[in-house]
Amino acid sequence: MEKNYKIDVVEDVAGITVVKGFRAGAAACDIRNKNDFDRLDTAVIVSDNLATAAGVFTTNDVKAAPVLTDIANLDRTTKVRAIVANSGNANACTGDRGMEDARRTCEFLAEKLGVEAKQVLVCSTGRIGEFMPMDKLFKGIEGALGSLSDSAESASAAARAIMTSDTRPKTVQVDVEFNGKKIRLAGMAKGAGMIEPNMATMLAFIVCDAVISQSLLKECLKFAANKSFNRITVDGDMSTNDTVLCMCNGSSKVEILESDADSIMAFRKGLLEVSKALARKIVGDGEKITKVVEVHVCGAKTEGQAEKICRSIGNSLLVKSSWFGEDPNWGRITDSAGYARTGIKLEKIDLDYDGIPVLKAGQPVAENKPLWKKAVSKKTFTINLNLNLGQAEETILASDLTEGYVNFNKGE
Amino acid sequence: MEKNYKIDVVEDVAGITVVKGFRAGAAACDIRNKNDFDRLDTAVIVSDNLATAAGVFTTNDVKAAPVLTDIANLDRTTKVRAIVANSGNANACTGDRGMEDARRTCEFLAEKLGVEAKQVLVCSTGRIGEFMPMDKLFKGIEGALGSLSDSAESASAAARAIMTSDTRPKTVQVDVEFNGKKIRLAGMAKGAGMIEPNMATMLAFIVCDAVISQSLLKECLKFAANKSFNRITVDGDMSTNDTVLCMCNGSSKVEILESDADSIMAFRKGLLEVSKALARKIVGDGEKITKVVEVHVCGAKTEGQAEKICRSIGNSLLVKSSWFGEDPNWGRITDSAGYARTGIKLEKIDLDYDGIPVLKAGQPVAENKPLWKKAVSKKTFTINLNLNLGQAEETILASDLTEGYVNFNKGE
Repeated sequence: MEKNYKIDVVEDVAGITVVKGFRAGAAACDIRNKNDFDRLDTAVIVSDNLATAAGVFTTNDVKAAPVLTDIANLDRTTKVRAIVANSGNANACTGDRGMEDARRTCEFLAEKLGVEAKQVLVCSTGRIGEFMPMDKLFKGIEGALGSLSDSAESASAAARAIMTSDTRPKTVQVDVEFNGKKIRLAGMAKGAGMIEPNMATMLAFIVCDAVISQSLLKECLKFAANKSFNRITVDGDMSTNDTVLCMCNGSSKVEILESDADSIMAFRKGLLEVSKALARKIVGDGEKITKVVEVHVCGAKTEGQAEKICRSIGNSLLVKSSWFGEDPNWGRITDSAGYARTGIKLEKIDLDYDGIPVLKAGQPVAENKPLWKKAVSKKTFTINLNLNLGQAEETILASDLTEGYVNFNKGE
Repeated sequence: MEKNYKIDVVEDVAGITVVKGFRAGAAACDIRNKNDFDRLDTAVIVSDNLATAAGVFTTNDVKAAPVLTDIANLDRTTKVRAIVANSGNANACTGDRGMEDARRTCEFLAEKLGVEAKQVLVCSTGRIGEFMPMDKLFKGIEGALGSLSDSAESASAAARAIMTSDTRPKTVQVDVEFNGKKIRLAGMAKGAGMIEPNMATMLAFIVCDAVISQSLLKECLKFAANKSFNRITVDGDMSTNDTVLCMCNGSSKVEILESDADSIMAFRKGLLEVSKALARKIVGDGEKITKVVEVHVCGAKTEGQAEKICRSIGNSLLVKSSWFGEDPNWGRITDSAGYARTGIKLEKIDLDYDGIPVLKAGQPVAENKPLWKKAVSKKTFTINLNLNLGQAEETILASDLTEGYVNFNKGE
C-alpha cells in the first residue's frame, strides 16, 4: 500500500499536555506509607470534553482490581473524561475490598468532575497484596486536581508520579500529517522490571486529538500494543496490572473513518510510533540493565516461529548474562534458538552482530572474531538471525541480566 | 496397584562399579586446552559383556554431534559395551567435522574393546562451538582404559571426570527387592547451570544388573527421566547435549518381563529413584544457587495445568530473586502462576510455605507473617499451591537466582 502520510516523532517532550484539550496534574500523598510527601505518587489526566477511550490489558489470569474495573467501565461506555493513576500500591490480589477501593476511586474523581463513575479509568502500580490507603489516595487526587493545567510542568509531574523503579519519566509526542490534515498524539509510560511477554508491570497513557469511534480505536490500539509493548523483554515476568489506555478527544476535528483508508493508516502509524517510542524507553530503563539488544529473526517459515525464537533468545538467562559480560557467545544464541523447538536447522543459520558475520551456514566466521567482541561491547546492538527457511521475520527488544537486577529484586 | 517391592537408596556411594560387571576409568588429558593435566576430563564406563542400552536425549532443535551419534547407534543396536564421556568441550555446533569426530571417538574405543563402533556410546559436555582436540581425547581414552577397574576409586574418578561447573560428583545406588529377587542400579550424573525444561546441560549414566529388552528399558527410562530430570529447573535454559543413558548387563540374571507386572513395577521404581536422586543432586548443585525449592501445585484441572504453573513459578526471575533474598513474596508467586494463563482463580487459591498457611481463598493469612519469613529462610523448603479447581498435581524442584549466577555466566 502507498504511504500517504508524514510522521514526526518528538522524543524530548514534557508530556501529554502537548495535545490540545488535555490537562494533567500530580500530587504526593505518601501511598507507600513511608512518610515521604516529596515523592509524587498520584497523577490525573483530564480531557476537557468526553473523549473516546479504549484499553489493552494484561492477559494474566490474576488481574488487579483497577484492570478489572477499567475493563468493566469500557464495556459500559465509549467515552471517558479522565484517568487517575497511582504508584506505590498496585491494588492487586486484594479481593473484594480491592475492587471496592478501585470503584470508590473512580467515583471520587467522577464526582469532582461532574461525570459518571464509569467515565473515569483507574490504574495502580507498585506493591502487590496490600490494601490501598484510600484516605491518602483521595487527598492525592484532590491535590492533583488542584494542580491541573495544560502546562509542561504539569505534564512532566504526572509522568513522574507514575514511576516505580523507573529512573526517568517516559514521554513522547508524534505528529501525523495526511491529505493536508494534521493530528497529534502524545504518550507517557512507566515500566522498569517484569516487562514480558505482554506489557508486564507497565502503564502507558496515550492521548490524541483525532475524532474516532471506540471500535476503531480499540482495533488500532491492539495492533500498536502488540507490535511494541508486547515485543520487549526485561525479565520475562508479566504483571497483574499492565495497562495501555488511549483517549481521543477530537479537538483537531480530524476524523479517522473506516471508510477512509488513508486516515486509518495514518492514525495507526501514529499510534504505533508513540507505542514503539514508549516501549523503547521502557526497555532502556529496565531494572539495573546495561544493554538493550534488538533481536531480529528473519528467514522464518512463519511470524509465529520468528517470534518464538526471538523470545527464547531474549529470555535466556545464559544469553542475557553473556550480554552483560560483553561476551559474543554465539553458542548460547543458537542453543536458545534451538530449544524454542520450532524446527530450525543449524547448518542453514546465518548470524550477525550489528552486520558483522558471526555464523555462515552454521559455521563460525572465525576471522571476524575480534570484531564480534567490539559489536557486543556497545550499549545497544542488533542480533540478526537468518533461519533461511522462509520469508517471515519478527523483532523484539531485550535487555541483559545483571547482578544488580538480582540484588534489586531479592526483596526485604 | 499393590506395591510388591522393597527399595533401598544409598546416597553415599562412590559410583557405578557397585553394580557387578561394570568397570570405570578416568584420565586427565587437558581437553580444555589450559595445560591442566590434573583435572580429570575423560571417563569410560565398560560392561564386561554386551549390555542392553537405551537413551533419552535433548529435544533441542540443535543437537550436538555426540547426541546425534548415540541416537543413530541405538537405532542400529540393542546392546553396547561402553560409554565414553568427556568434559571441557561439548562438540556442539561443530558441523560435519563434529559428527566425524564423534564417530571417530566411538571407533577408537570400540577397536580397543574389540567390538563394533555402534556398540559404543559417546557424550561430551563443556564449551559449545569449538572442535574437539582429538589427539588429546584419544590419549584420554587410552589413559582411562589403563585405569579401568571395578574399584570405588575408579568409579569416583569417572564421576568427577564429567563435571563442568559442578562442585561435587553426583552418584547414587539403589537396591530393589521383589518376589525374593534382587537387582541393583547405580548412577552418576553431572549438571550445574542450564537445567530446564528437558535435562539441559546434564549427563546421567545409569547401570543395572537386570536382564531386560531394549524396548522395555527405553519405555521405563523415558518415564523415569520425565518424572525426574525433566522436573527440575535452575535457569530455564536447555542445552544441545543433554543425555541420559542406561545400560543393563544382566549380571544378576533377574529378568524384567512385559509378562511379569511385578518385575516391571519394581524395575521402573528403581530407575525412578536413581533418576530422582541424581536430579535432586543436580539442582542442589546448580550454578551459584543458595536454595532448592520444591514447587508443588495441586487441585489442578489437569497435570498439564499443574506442570505449566510449576514451571511458570520455578522460572520466574522475580520469584527466584525473592527466594535468594529470603523474602516470602506471595504476590510474585500468584502473579507468575497467573501468567501461565491456564485459567486459575485467585479467590480459590490456598498457598502455604512448608505447611504454614500464607493465603486462604486468595487472601493473606496475616497472623502467620512472622512464620513465612522463617520458612523461606531455610536452605530447602516447599511451596504448596492448591488451585482448588480439580484433582491433578505436579511437582518441580527449582533453585533461586543469585548475583553469583549472573557473575559466573557473564562470560569472557
